[in-house]
Amino acid sequence: MPKTNISPPTQHIRGVLAPVVTPFKTDLSPDRERFIRHCQWLLSQKCGLAPFGTTSEANSMSAEERTALLDALVAAGIDPSRMMPGTGCCSITETVALTADAVRHGCAGVLMLPPFYYKDVSEEGLLRYFSEVVQRVGDTRLKIYLYHIPPVAIVGITPKLVERLLKAYPNTIAGMKDSSGDWNNTKTFLDAFAETARAARSFDVFVGSESFLLANMRHGGAGTISATANVNLAAIYELYEKCSVVRRGERRGDKKALAVASASTTDLEDQQAQLNAVRQVFSSRKFPSMIAALKQAIAIYRNEPEWARVRPPLIELTTDQAKVLATDLKAIGFAMPGIRTKGHS
Amino acid sequence: MPKTNISPPTQHIRGVLAPVVTPFKTDLSPDRERFIRHCQWLLSQKCGLAPFGTTSEANSMSAEERTALLDALVAAGIDPSRMMPGTGCCSITETVALTADAVRHGCAGVLMLPPFYYKDVSEEGLLRYFSEVVQRVGDTRLKIYLYHIPPVAIVGITPKLVERLLKAYPNTIAGMKDSSGDWNNTKTFLDAFAETARAARSFDVFVGSESFLLANMRHGGAGTISATANVNLAAIYELYEKCSVVRRGERRGDKKALAVASASTTDLEDQQAQLNAVRQVFSSRKFPSMIAALKQAIAIYRNEPEWARVRPPLIELTTDQAKVLATDLKAIGFAMPGIRTKGHS
Repeated sequence: MPKTNISPPTQHIRGVLAPVVTPFKTDLSPDRERFIRHCQWLLSQKCGLAPFGTTSEANSMSAEERTALLDALVAAGIDPSRMMPGTGCCSITETVALTADAVRHGCAGVLMLPPFYYKDVSEEGLLRYFSEVVQRVGDTRLKIYLYHIPPVAIVGITPKLVERLLKAYPNTIAGMKDSSGDWNNTKTFLDAFAETARAARSFDVFVGSESFLLANMRHGGAGTISATANVNLAAIYELYEKCSVVRRGERRGDKKALAVASASTTDLEDQQAQLNAVRQVFSSRKFPSMIAALKQAIAIYRNEPEWARVRPPLIELTTDQAKVLATDLKAIGFAMPGIRTKGHS
Repeated sequence: MPKTNISPPTQHIRGVLAPVVTPFKTDLSPDRERFIRHCQWLLSQKCGLAPFGTTSEANSMSAEERTALLDALVAAGIDPSRMMPGTGCCSITETVALTADAVRHGCAGVLMLPPFYYKDVSEEGLLRYFSEVVQRVGDTRLKIYLYHIPPVAIVGITPKLVERLLKAYPNTIAGMKDSSGDWNNTKTFLDAFAETARAARSFDVFVGSESFLLANMRHGGAGTISATANVNLAAIYELYEKCSVVRRGERRGDKKALAVASASTTDLEDQQAQLNAVRQVFSSRKFPSMIAALKQAIAIYRNEPEWARVRPPLIELTTDQAKVLATDLKAIGFAMPGIRTKGHS
């Protein structure tokens, strides 16, 4: 394993976070009870929660619906220090309201999309947007993770923007999620902000797909916030944890740990390949979207057909597509450990 | 003037509509009084109102802010039958709330963006989205104008989608605004739904830029909903009205009117060229955005510097850019007829 950037210990949230899928009732309203149960299961598998992300269909919900769901999670006893809710909307007013709410609840941080309606906006405009949000929330507990997902939001986060934001708000800009799907882009951010990582504070880079988890961990990254963590979290967490053990050994200059690390390189790569195989099933073009496929899988494995429902403009898998998904998952021996299947076993 | 599709008379809103720019106070909250004054001026110049569009920075406002502004307009006596507010958000819940509110106020129609967060969504998904909205609003007075603006929303409106929606909701799907900037696309819609236009009801196509106004009117279009109508409405309306006179003559088979029309072709084209010259100033790459340039022009011509303000991620013109704009507008003899300049004349 190559030399990694050494980060000082922090209280920041790290590891594997699930952008929690949101179950809907027949009338398309969020199903709070089912949502809470899924969050509890994710936490039991050592997964952090990033509710209200792209996979959560957060932008298909109103700000009020999101606020009510976060309130419900906290009321149900879900630990806010393991949550990084998505709060970025197109308007400063809504972003501030959702962000202030997350801070009030004591969430570990917020995952913030840039305003995504206008395209080709300037770096200066984005700087002013995020600055307004930070100043209006006005709370030293606020930790912002910038959300870079150009295939969906089109508007992205550039290294120069991060540099300016870190300079202006060093204690608030805590990291980012890179869902560009481009490892070179992730590496650019890791390289650019390595110095920061060695300094008293860290800028934590999460990859938006576990297919880059090993690479990210080898270069000082903080983990992954990935759609498939909704179903495959245990395996993803295992790879994350092994990488963390190696990193801790390196940090201590522990020769034994480094020898183990060197020997286990093939193991780690095998494990990464297994994660990729699972991801490949869900991201297949055979299905209308990965989000719908993930929900369909939960519906199958929990034996709760209600889970399959999505809000338009997304669409569910057809009955035939659902059968194909079940077959494909069975073929790779996929399982969701620890879930209590309704009406089964 | 070539043969146009003949539409039956309807009560539908037509002509020149301004996607009304939204003035903001120092704290970036909407300035209701200034907004109302601008709307009153637009109406006095025979312009219809399409508040909460792209030019209005509607998506930079919360749903509550939009609702409050529409309430304020109606309370101030602005005629709802001359309004087509933008109500399309990413979520069905917010779109339904804003749309129901517009219907309740008796607005002529609503201009509806497709849900624009997820990209590459299916036609079926968009159909389900709009269907949900129509069914949830559940009001026969609802008239939806679909908003096709692919350079910004990326997600667009296809002829096939319009066909399916018209089939399902013939009395609700009233038309569209085409801001593709591609005349061939507009013509495709005009051609595809000409039969509808000849039938008992009409599908009204508005162009999103007055640079296509003459072409649109020559092919049976309904007018334009254009950013520059915020400042150049009188001239745009003049061209619209002349085209309408010609169309009415054609409809009646009035040979005298047709002869006049034929003779005035050069006039119409000259007038179109003049509109284009004004638009060119505002859309110049010298300025950060057309929206900011339009607001800056209002600030200059009304002598109200507050008008220049935009919400991030948009940015204002610099002092130097504002001077360039003033010079460029003076050079083409631009004027805003009928506005009372504060502290001037």
